[in-house]
Amino acid sequence: MRGHAERNRQDAVLPAGFTPPREGATRLRVRYSECDPMNVAHHGAYPAWLELGRTELLRAGGVSYAQLEHAGVFLVVTRLEVRYRRPVLYDDVIEVRTRVKAAGRVKIDHEYEVVVVERGGSVREEVCAVASTTIACVDRDGRVRELPAWLAGVPASAT
Amino acid sequence: MRGHAERNRQDAVLPAGFTPPREGATRLRVRYSECDPMNVAHHGAYPAWLELGRTELLRAGGVSYAQLEHAGVFLVVTRLEVRYRRPVLYDDVIEVRTRVKAAGRVKIDHEYEVVVVERGGSVREEVCAVASTTIACVDRDGRVRELPAWLAGVPASAT
Amino acid sequence: MRGHAERNRQDAVLPAGFTPPREGATRLRVRYSECDPMNVAHHGAYPAWLELGRTELLRAGGVSYAQLEHAGVFLVVTRLEVRYRRPVLYDDVIEVRTRVKAAGRVKIDHEYEVVVVERGGSVREEVCAVASTTIACVDRDGRVRELPAWLAGVPASAT
Amino acid sequence: MRGHAERNRQDAVLPAGFTPPREGATRLRVRYSECDPMNVAHHGAYPAWLELGRTELLRAGGVSYAQLEHAGVFLVVTRLEVRYRRPVLYDDVIEVRTRVKAAGRVKIDHEYEVVVVERGGSVREEVCAVASTTIACVDRDGRVRELPAWLAGVPASAT
Repeated sequence: MRGHAERNRQDAVLPAGFTPPREGATRLRVRYSECDPMNVAHHGAYPAWLELGRTELLRAGGVSYAQLEHAGVFLVVTRLEVRYRRPVLYDDVIEVRTRVKAAGRVKIDHEYEVVVVERGGSVREEVCAVASTTIACVDRDGRVRELPAWLAGVPASAT
Repeated sequence: MRGHAERNRQDAVLPAGFTPPREGATRLRVRYSECDPMNVAHHGAYPAWLELGRTELLRAGGVSYAQLEHAGVFLVVTRLEVRYRRPVLYDDVIEVRTRVKAAGRVKIDHEYEVVVVERGGSVREEVCAVASTTIACVDRDGRVRELPAWLAGVPASAT
Repeated sequence: MRGHAERNRQDAVLPAGFTPPREGATRLRVRYSECDPMNVAHHGAYPAWLELGRTELLRAGGVSYAQLEHAGVFLVVTRLEVRYRRPVLYDDVIEVRTRVKAAGRVKIDHEYEVVVVERGGSVREEVCAVASTTIACVDRDGRVRELPAWLAGVPASAT
Repeated sequence: MRGHAERNRQDAVLPAGFTPPREGATRLRVRYSECDPMNVAHHGAYPAWLELGRTELLRAGGVSYAQLEHAGVFLVVTRLEVRYRRPVLYDDVIEVRTRVKAAGRVKIDHEYEVVVVERGGSVREEVCAVASTTIACVDRDGRVRELPAWLAGVPASAT
């Protein structure tokens, strides 16, 4: 019963027929606290940036991840891969370009590019890292559950 | 009723007459990810170290903070002050010396020293920062509540 | 000699007679990775936010902190105090309001308010924390040095 | 010339014929600040744990990573993959089991298991994540350089 009510709550989050965007970009400026003694962003700072990429993609579709959690939909990362090609520096403005690669019934694969778009006041366009993640949908108790219909079922795109 | 049951649960955490230690020390090694481009531990890394100081002091008394939360006792920091005297370096072993300065009905004041006790394989004893915090006790919903009896009521010590 | 050249470099950072702004505000959205099991921003996340407040205040004056470091001017936090009044939640938009309280020959005192200005899509105005820091100026080797003339000498304001 | 002197310095780090260990394990306790609103360690906390795995493996061989940097040897992560199988909880004691999978002339591949070995005071043995990284060797200016002889040249092991 409670499960049924909860399902209604989450479906109520969005109007019927809604289709969230498949890709998007969000910008952030690299913080001093994210950089290490090598004078570059620490490799451990990137997962939080990718997370921003995902949540802003969701928001661009009209839903915040905070709303999802309130509705009992929790998204957990089950796989993360990052390939670091060039250093990202303190104060760089980076753009996290995020794309849904495939969305199934219970999980979603994303791909990312981390691109430096400004350094030292100058515009640039430098892909410094590429990444991919798999996220799975769980309920409040951590059990795997189905994604809300409007998030799921996106067919794998031709990469 | 639920509140009553919860009270029992938390009091059950410890035997009657228990008196937790008033001071203690815990050691940790400074992580690369905690250091910044100045080649020193970032000032924002210290609050987590002080938190370790508090939780290990609690553990030395036989209770983990995780147990407290399970029992409905949440401790939140309401004030933090750190005075940074000398830099702490990557790979330093530091000792966080933690002392209960005063414990009232709903809050506890702690004092800390962050001491480098090993650098580059050599023993040393260098107080690099001193700090103090106030923590308050809240329930699962964030409302101020009384500390468990065994944590509260420690009279202010003569500093 | 080297010191002299370096002094010229840093003074070259800004035109003569420049007066940086005394106060400013910068916004950021609270990240999931900054929040803890109590479902609120961890108290240890705030120092990085205050740092953003300072560096954006500097930028508003036309100088990035990255430029300062290139010119041999390093600013280190020697004191930090935060008073946490109300929780800040995941996905909140906060505004860090930063003000130079006093600037001497080798150090600067800042004051801050951390204000939630948006929660769950609704505008609000809630001061959740107040803070203050003291930063000191050091050279590349960590020795105390004078602040660049344009940063120093701001008389203490009447709070 | 300077390069030559530097080479000598780094080779001086270790006695001739030294062979560092190929695998090892290090333990740490999960910090509150590493956990997120889902009440589990945030996936972004793991890269720092893996880094500890690598640096402690190095230390077990008699060299600290800090010494390497002083000798002009910088190790940068160029690839990171983590597969998160089960949640790690606040206050869990985890063991990071680290193994050199292959070491070439300029890069090293490591494999890891993140194993919960204690939860709530009870011993357990639960592999919660597996991971792999590739690190490359660069000099002080970020240019790819050869690994010190004693780190390089380990043939790929039969996994």
